[in-house]
Amino acid sequence: MESKYKELKRECYEANMELNALDLVIYTFGNVSAVDRQNKVFAIKPSGVPYEKLKPEDIVIVDFENNIVEGEMRPSSDTKTHAFLYKNWEDIGGIAHTHATYSVAWAQAQKDIPIFGTTHADHLVADIPCAPPMKDKLIEGNYEHNTGIQILDCFKDKKISHQEVQMVLLGNHGPFTWGNSASKAVYNSKVLEEVARMAYLTLQINPNAPRLKDSLIKKHYERKHGKDAYYGQK
Amino acid sequence: MESKYKELKRECYEANMELNALDLVIYTFGNVSAVDRQNKVFAIKPSGVPYEKLKPEDIVIVDFENNIVEGEMRPSSDTKTHAFLYKNWEDIGGIAHTHATYSVAWAQAQKDIPIFGTTHADHLVADIPCAPPMKDKLIEGNYEHNTGIQILDCFKDKKISHQEVQMVLLGNHGPFTWGNSASKAVYNSKVLEEVARMAYLTLQINPNAPRLKDSLIKKHYERKHGKDAYYGQK
Amino acid sequence: MESKYKELKRECYEANMELNALDLVIYTFGNVSAVDRQNKVFAIKPSGVPYEKLKPEDIVIVDFENNIVEGEMRPSSDTKTHAFLYKNWEDIGGIAHTHATYSVAWAQAQKDIPIFGTTHADHLVADIPCAPPMKDKLIEGNYEHNTGIQILDCFKDKKISHQEVQMVLLGNHGPFTWGNSASKAVYNSKVLEEVARMAYLTLQINPNAPRLKDSLIKKHYERKHGKDAYYGQK
Amino acid sequence: MESKYKELKRECYEANMELNALDLVIYTFGNVSAVDRQNKVFAIKPSGVPYEKLKPEDIVIVDFENNIVEGEMRPSSDTKTHAFLYKNWEDIGGIAHTHATYSVAWAQAQKDIPIFGTTHADHLVADIPCAPPMKDKLIEGNYEHNTGIQILDCFKDKKISHQEVQMVLLGNHGPFTWGNSASKAVYNSKVLEEVARMAYLTLQINPNAPRLKDSLIKKHYERKHGKDAYYGQK
Repeated sequence: MESKYKELKRECYEANMELNALDLVIYTFGNVSAVDRQNKVFAIKPSGVPYEKLKPEDIVIVDFENNIVEGEMRPSSDTKTHAFLYKNWEDIGGIAHTHATYSVAWAQAQKDIPIFGTTHADHLVADIPCAPPMKDKLIEGNYEHNTGIQILDCFKDKKISHQEVQMVLLGNHGPFTWGNSASKAVYNSKVLEEVARMAYLTLQINPNAPRLKDSLIKKHYERKHGKDAYYGQK
Repeated sequence: MESKYKELKRECYEANMELNALDLVIYTFGNVSAVDRQNKVFAIKPSGVPYEKLKPEDIVIVDFENNIVEGEMRPSSDTKTHAFLYKNWEDIGGIAHTHATYSVAWAQAQKDIPIFGTTHADHLVADIPCAPPMKDKLIEGNYEHNTGIQILDCFKDKKISHQEVQMVLLGNHGPFTWGNSASKAVYNSKVLEEVARMAYLTLQINPNAPRLKDSLIKKHYERKHGKDAYYGQK
Repeated sequence: MESKYKELKRECYEANMELNALDLVIYTFGNVSAVDRQNKVFAIKPSGVPYEKLKPEDIVIVDFENNIVEGEMRPSSDTKTHAFLYKNWEDIGGIAHTHATYSVAWAQAQKDIPIFGTTHADHLVADIPCAPPMKDKLIEGNYEHNTGIQILDCFKDKKISHQEVQMVLLGNHGPFTWGNSASKAVYNSKVLEEVARMAYLTLQINPNAPRLKDSLIKKHYERKHGKDAYYGQK
Repeated sequence: MESKYKELKRECYEANMELNALDLVIYTFGNVSAVDRQNKVFAIKPSGVPYEKLKPEDIVIVDFENNIVEGEMRPSSDTKTHAFLYKNWEDIGGIAHTHATYSVAWAQAQKDIPIFGTTHADHLVADIPCAPPMKDKLIEGNYEHNTGIQILDCFKDKKISHQEVQMVLLGNHGPFTWGNSASKAVYNSKVLEEVARMAYLTLQINPNAPRLKDSLIKKHYERKHGKDAYYGQK
């Protein structure tokens, strides 16, 4: 009998393969998931499988309490972080996690990525937040679950919305990104990596480079995402 | 009935695809246009369309007052900047805009790119200008139109000619380049990106690297563009 | 008559070609070997052969005293280093040596690579050691043999285990990596190069970036390599 | 009637195409020549022809006095530099000139590339020299011929041999490399670019990185080029 999650698995599989095609991962690094809100489950990459060997049927279906609903393989070791985010952010459709080079470098440097230009402002109006490394107790406890808490706390502390800022750096670790679909989450991972690289180079050229001014931030974000947006097709 | 702009659309389409092939853009970033001086219109990439999906017939024909003359899709959100430049610089044939990494980094750093070597001098005899970010009133107003004004003002202030310097950085945004054809505009985007990368590395190796001396600037530019030029085929 | 080492040569050949496919070498740089513990021999790349021309039958079989057991060609000039390591570390199955760019840069800078993040901690729990350049007497003597001694001394001095840290930088030279197979040794070369690049960028962004804290080092290493590891498939 | 230089043209053509395949040039940048000592002529790339359009029959045959011996097209604008070097260094077989990024960056920084490691020492035992920019009078005169003089003067001043050091940076311009064949000259261009990149990164990691010590320089060069060399096949 055909799985009722065949389409969901295919979406998840394709988003994972795109992560690989976009040079955001090597070997088994990284993972993407796609959610099915109706059935309260998500599809996620199996743990430790190289992208070249990944098949749609390897994708694992997990519910928001981290129970495996369908699949022969162990899900990604980061599964609990995905589950936590899906449970708490009820409007997101996909999540991606990579170890992309420039994103990781900023995470290891434990610095927010300043908004320096319109490439950044076309996608979000704030600095890209870097959540501080977790307290030891949280690390030793339910680590991947607590990673999710750490992300939510960071957004609360900085008073930013996960709908407007669809990406975060985890201090010493790397980026998580999300969006209304798995494919959009991967898109955000690629944009983050490119913005991280541009910001890095900007500071090398001019250590005193100023943040983008508010009027330009607003203009570029509004023309793409505002109610009178004129970027893209209707 | 076949469009009278079929050739123009093809030229514009191919120049846009070259932008992508040369790794100067990702996703839907960037745009190229090609002008038809006789009919006072130009062909430009539709807004927000990924390069892999772009077809010659998607290209939009626009006049210098920003009216759509032919095409089903919305033109690039930067269309007004293109129109303004075509109207004011009557001898240019094509315009390209990218978010290429090193070009954007210099624009975000708000620095002119100093002329450090003959690769630069083979193409232009001045530093590559970085126009300052616009005043808030201009940003909040007719933004893309005013971007064109900003470029022209920059060239007036610095007393440089758009025929000799076929490229500019917009502070906090990125590069615009032009030339006697759309293809030449794309060529200039690629050269700019390479020169931007070389200048970046030069300053990392030697923060006190001197500008190229005048005799060498003159020699390299003259052998390629002077009246007794001996670079290339007759 | 077919060689009894046909399988070993094929393993060695494929690992060498992977080194090339992963962009870790150019021209004839680098070499990989695979050991046959039962017969006390190893298979290694012939010296100075470009990867595009390498064939499985070119691979040379050498014993732990550096005698050629089978093969028409001269083995890699680094053969004695491989022999020494196989002899002294009786549990390793393969060794790789590259001149990969970022790994070499750290070796030339004569710096250990600090553990800055979880990408690093997923693979090893210590800084990646950089062995100091050899004393002149050792260089002028049996150089490649002494290179092996230098590596072992470095691990003794720093009190680290070659089972936990499967990679080393040789000061002014470049990386050696190993593992339970030739293919795993190549994997470690790629991971080292990526970690070297991330650490380089981290320090450019934040010269005071802190080392990863102990709890996170432990957590990430344990979830992949500990007795209750939950990364990968059972 | 078939050209007597057909083989020479083919060698030159293939070396030029290799320059392109190795990512050392873009567009029409760079050029390679191959000499025929018996007939006192050399084959060189025509000026300003993109590599994708280059054909073996486009290659121009020039004598050491810069007269075109065969060919419909104008030879490279750097032809006189090639002629001068062939005339003065009677044992070289090919010359390559590129605008490869890291090589150019060092040339623009007007710095010799310090010998930091064995990748460098495997190929030459000295710092890679950067010739100072020419005096104005020489630039305004017979520029490309004088470029050859500048290279020879640099080798005389620094007391280095063109047989041992088969590469030079021209201040503010870029690299010239040579060898016993056109293909070897291209090889040297690639090695130079890689060594330039490693040295750049080394100094970013450790601004006080020490030069390679003499015993290691000697060892690595000798094992590859000395009378008892054991690198490569007999």
